[in-house]
Amino acid sequence: MAEMAEQPRVISSLAARREEIVADVRRLVPTTPAGTVFAARGSSANASIYGRHAIGLATRRPALLESLSVRAAHGVDVDYSGWLAIGTSQSGRTPEIVDALDGHRSSGATTIAITNASASPLGAVADLAIDLGADFERAVPATKSLTAQLAVFALLSTALDRGTDEHGWTDRTWQHLVDAITSCLDDPSPVDAVRREIEGAAGLIVCGRGFAYPVAREGALKIKEVTGIPAEAYSNLDLLHGPIAVTRDSVPTLVVALRGPTEPDIDRLVEELVARSVPFWTVGDRADADIAIPAGLPEPLAAIAAVVRLQQLALGLALGRGIDPDAPHQLSKVTLT
Amino acid sequence: MAEMAEQPRVISSLAARREEIVADVRRLVPTTPAGTVFAARGSSANASIYGRHAIGLATRRPALLESLSVRAAHGVDVDYSGWLAIGTSQSGRTPEIVDALDGHRSSGATTIAITNASASPLGAVADLAIDLGADFERAVPATKSLTAQLAVFALLSTALDRGTDEHGWTDRTWQHLVDAITSCLDDPSPVDAVRREIEGAAGLIVCGRGFAYPVAREGALKIKEVTGIPAEAYSNLDLLHGPIAVTRDSVPTLVVALRGPTEPDIDRLVEELVARSVPFWTVGDRADADIAIPAGLPEPLAAIAAVVRLQQLALGLALGRGIDPDAPHQLSKVTLT
Repeated sequence: MAEMAEQPRVISSLAARREEIVADVRRLVPTTPAGTVFAARGSSANASIYGRHAIGLATRRPALLESLSVRAAHGVDVDYSGWLAIGTSQSGRTPEIVDALDGHRSSGATTIAITNASASPLGAVADLAIDLGADFERAVPATKSLTAQLAVFALLSTALDRGTDEHGWTDRTWQHLVDAITSCLDDPSPVDAVRREIEGAAGLIVCGRGFAYPVAREGALKIKEVTGIPAEAYSNLDLLHGPIAVTRDSVPTLVVALRGPTEPDIDRLVEELVARSVPFWTVGDRADADIAIPAGLPEPLAAIAAVVRLQQLALGLALGRGIDPDAPHQLSKVTLT
Repeated sequence: MAEMAEQPRVISSLAARREEIVADVRRLVPTTPAGTVFAARGSSANASIYGRHAIGLATRRPALLESLSVRAAHGVDVDYSGWLAIGTSQSGRTPEIVDALDGHRSSGATTIAITNASASPLGAVADLAIDLGADFERAVPATKSLTAQLAVFALLSTALDRGTDEHGWTDRTWQHLVDAITSCLDDPSPVDAVRREIEGAAGLIVCGRGFAYPVAREGALKIKEVTGIPAEAYSNLDLLHGPIAVTRDSVPTLVVALRGPTEPDIDRLVEELVARSVPFWTVGDRADADIAIPAGLPEPLAAIAAVVRLQQLALGLALGRGIDPDAPHQLSKVTLT
């Protein structure tokens, strides 16, 4: 909870460094890269899925998370000449991520590390290391480092978007995000109301699309990690396409619903859930959200505030079950592989 | 069950067409593409994850499944000049897949459709349509069309692998796969033994890495679709990295374990599961497999036989619960979006 509470400060200091970060990235990557490849695991992989979406839209070039087994198990180096490779790891010490980014650099990519420890093995294999400035994270489940990663990816999309100024958010936009996170942290009551309704559930579904998809993945991961409740993330369309069969037992469903281009799709999903009598709650900046975040943010930044709401939910569910959310059963911070 | 039983015949006829398919692909794609992008949903997305791995290894170039929302929701066309784009849909009529492949073609990609109906909207937007030849699939859960898709991706990796002859399997290799599938279908007893042990489970985990990862995903999807049991797929490393917390309640775990480069990783996973007293069973061609498939197949083809074992498990679990596996609750074959 203490680390969650640091998030406004961490995001605020990243926003204060935004011109410097954007300038560093533009100096390193002076023209649009052929594509962008991301290396990450766990929460950092969820942040990278956000980055893939944001940077794919900004560059209009291919963007992907590569399966780590291509290099690690098969010993194959993919040709990434002209590409940008971004390795993300809170500790900067996850060996497979260091190895992957090093491989991407050998294969011709320009490399960026996003880490909470620039003086780490990951920082050492990167052409540019962007420090999250989130200070040491003690709790096992990543919170402040994760939202900081999302903010850095939002800044990277600003830096790489040469076509329009759409992503060139002002200081005022970033301050609005900081205020929104503060306001969420100050008033957990909408989260508590939903938590009470779902705390006995045997399982949960969390779904979203576009920028809301990595939010749903991170929310499901956090709930699983800290409570042990099997929570599964879906893209809205994948949920409708097949696995909605699971909801015959009425698995409570959380829908991450952000204002923006995916709204028609959210409306259709909500109609389906109503028609099938699936119990569901929405999280986001739409007027009818059950767990609201302040309105008025651009979609990519609203997604960051929505992550905080799901952190609150995971925390509440853990405390309700008598679990220490800072050190849940059987988890360790760095997986040595 | 009738359609599952057709799989040896369908794979056999694809194998008989292999020289023609390889020649068609090599004519269309005379030099290594800059990368390969896949468009698919549901079971076809699992087949495409197999294809991404196989073709990524064969071409040593980037390979990715693009989020459908990039074009459909955001209206952004990514630049795929010089790329190969592969759209996969059993019916060839899933509108978002047709739209995605059409978009990739407009963006400069060479396009291939993999479908059970070449004379379909998906076939119409492709430079080359490869017919699965799996005849009409009546059951809602894809079985014979899915394994046929995997076989086509194996053939495509043969066609695109110009560096080595590693993937140029002979008629004898393909016949071995056909025989292996026949032998699995003829003897479901190892599946039944495991089914009896897990049929009361509130949830299941299915995991794998490399070629075994799409097998795990497809197995989990099939079990969810036809039985409603929440089954979740993980990459082996992702399971260890965090969500293994879920196993505190001892969620039964199926490990897809294939001979090949991921074996050291499987051994480590198995050690962890033993140490944590998680009940688990292995599916694959290793000598100690609980649900065995015949040994001696190259890893990518062994993966296809392993899919059949998980189909048998889903079928057995459904029948045990009194569910009609051909038309499970609330599912329809084509999702119109």
